[in-house]
Amino acid sequence: MKLIILGAAAGGGFPQWNCACRNCARARAGDAAAQPRTQASLAVSANGADWVLFNASPDLRAQILATPALHPRGGLRDSPIQAVVLTGGDVDFTAGLLNLREGQTFGLYAGQRILDLLDANSIFRVLDAGLVPRRPLATDTATVLRDAAGRELGLTVEAFVVPGKVALYAEDASRPDFGSSAGDTVGLHITDAGGRGFFYIPACATLSDDVARRVRGSALVLFDGTLWLDDEMISLGLSAKTGARMGHISVSGARGTIAGFAELGVARKVFVHINNSNPMIIDDTPERKIAETAGWTVAYDGMEIIL
Amino acid sequence: MKLIILGAAAGGGFPQWNCACRNCARARAGDAAAQPRTQASLAVSANGADWVLFNASPDLRAQILATPALHPRGGLRDSPIQAVVLTGGDVDFTAGLLNLREGQTFGLYAGQRILDLLDANSIFRVLDAGLVPRRPLATDTATVLRDAAGRELGLTVEAFVVPGKVALYAEDASRPDFGSSAGDTVGLHITDAGGRGFFYIPACATLSDDVARRVRGSALVLFDGTLWLDDEMISLGLSAKTGARMGHISVSGARGTIAGFAELGVARKVFVHINNSNPMIIDDTPERKIAETAGWTVAYDGMEIIL
Repeated sequence: MKLIILGAAAGGGFPQWNCACRNCARARAGDAAAQPRTQASLAVSANGADWVLFNASPDLRAQILATPALHPRGGLRDSPIQAVVLTGGDVDFTAGLLNLREGQTFGLYAGQRILDLLDANSIFRVLDAGLVPRRPLATDTATVLRDAAGRELGLTVEAFVVPGKVALYAEDASRPDFGSSAGDTVGLHITDAGGRGFFYIPACATLSDDVARRVRGSALVLFDGTLWLDDEMISLGLSAKTGARMGHISVSGARGTIAGFAELGVARKVFVHINNSNPMIIDDTPERKIAETAGWTVAYDGMEIIL
Repeated sequence: MKLIILGAAAGGGFPQWNCACRNCARARAGDAAAQPRTQASLAVSANGADWVLFNASPDLRAQILATPALHPRGGLRDSPIQAVVLTGGDVDFTAGLLNLREGQTFGLYAGQRILDLLDANSIFRVLDAGLVPRRPLATDTATVLRDAAGRELGLTVEAFVVPGKVALYAEDASRPDFGSSAGDTVGLHITDAGGRGFFYIPACATLSDDVARRVRGSALVLFDGTLWLDDEMISLGLSAKTGARMGHISVSGARGTIAGFAELGVARKVFVHINNSNPMIIDDTPERKIAETAGWTVAYDGMEIIL
C-alpha cells in the first residue's frame, strides 16, 4: 500500500492568504525552515495504478499537477483517481470536488449527513450523478471501495465516529453544540487485501476512549495536528475560537495528542492537517523537536509512505 | 490603473487535471512553449493599495500566493483585496470565494441571479454576511465599488448583459436554453476616477451588436478566448459540446472574435479565459501567430497592464 500526502496543512493552508503571523510571514519570505503546505488531502493506492483520495482539499488542482502518479495515463481524458472518500463536510475537505469536474468517473463516498450537505448545495452538481455515484459510507462497517463502475480497488475502509462538529457553514447557533451530530466527523481505518492497514483521522476534538481503543497497537496513524495549544488562535490574536470550539484536539498538554498516544503502542505516528498557527509546522522550533522526540513525524506535501 | 491577470485559462486550467490532449501533454511535460495557466481571475487597482478581484477562480489561493501585491501588508490578519465582482455563476468564476474565508472583510458584487445562486448554496456561508456584504450589481448602471465598510475604492463598474448561459450546475434541461436568462453572464466596463477605462468580458457567446457598439474605439478589451473553433472540443474528441452550447464564441471564423473586432478600432485587445484545447494557448502554433498578427495578445498568468 502506498500513501502520498498531497497536502499536510489545515484549512487555509500555509501560508494562509490573509495571515501575517510569524509562521506565515516566514513561509511567504521563502524561509527554508518554513516549508509551504497545501490543505490536507491524502492519496492511497493498493496496486500502484488505481488511486483513492481521502478528502478533496481546495488545493486539489495544484496537488494533482504536482503528483505524477495522479496524472492521466493515456487516452484523451483519463485519471487514475477512481474514488474519493470524505471524512467531513467542511470546505477544506470538500471544495476540491469542484476541481474534479470535466466528465471523469469515480466513486464518491461519505457519511449520509455529509452527502446531504453536498446534495443541498447545487454547485456540486458539476459532478454529474451519472458519472460520479454518491455512496453512503456507514460507520462501524467494512466498505470495499469501488470505482464508478463497481470494480474493486483493493482497499477497504471502516469509518467510525470521532468527537467533532458539524461543518462551519452548516452550524446552527440556536442548537446545542451548533447542531453537530454523530457522523459529522469520522475517522477511517483503511486496509488492503493483505490486511495491512492504517488510520486516517485528520479532525478529532478529543482522544476518546473509543478512538484510543481502535488505534492501539496499530502500524500507522495519521492524526489531527491542527493546533499546538487549545487557545493558540486566541493568544496569537488570530481568532476568538479555541481548538475545542473548532473541533480539534491540541497536540500538547496533559489531554493533548502526544500525551494521549504515549502508551498506545502505535508504530508510526504522523501529524497531518497542521494549522499555520502551530509552531511545530516550522522545522527549527522547540515544539517540532518535542513532537519528534515523542516519536511523531510532522507531515509535508509530497511525503510518501509505503506500508 | 493597474491590472494583473491572475489566471488566463478557462475552466479546468492548463493543463487540466484529467486531460491528455496534445496541448495538456506538452504543458505537463514542461515544454517551454506550453506555459501552464490557472483559471481566469483579474486583479485591478486604481491606487496601488486597494485591489478588486474580477471573478474568483478555484485557483485563487495559489494566485494570491504568487502575487505580492495581494499579500497581507501588516497586522496579523490583512488583505489588500477590498472587493470581488462576479461576471457569472459558474464554478470557474465563483469557487475561489471559498478561498477567501477566514474572517476577512470585503464587498461582494454580482447580479441578482448570481447572488441567488450563492444564497442557495450554503457552502458560501463560510463568507460571513456580517464581514462580506453581498451587493446586487445592476446592469446598465454605474456602480462605485466600495470595501465592506463603504469606503470608495476609486473604481466604477458598469455591468451589461452579454449573450451567454446559466451556470452549468443550475442548468434545467426541461426549459428553453437550459433555463438561461439575461444577466446570467455579464460583461464589465471598469473605469477609474480619471475616466480611464477598459472592458472585461471573459465569457460571451456571440459578438452581439450591443457588445460591439459598447467596445468600439475603446483603449483596452479583455475578451473571451475560450475556443479557436466552435466544434473544437468535438473534433478533438474531448466533449460533445460546441462552444455555442457552452456559452463561448470562437476566436476564428467569419463570425468569430478576430473577424468581429477587426473594424472596431480597439487599441489593445487581449484574449483571456483560454481553454486548454485552444491551439493559440501554445506559443509556437500557427493559430497564435494568426491571433497576434490580428493585433491580439494571448494573456498569461502574472501579465500586468498599466492603463
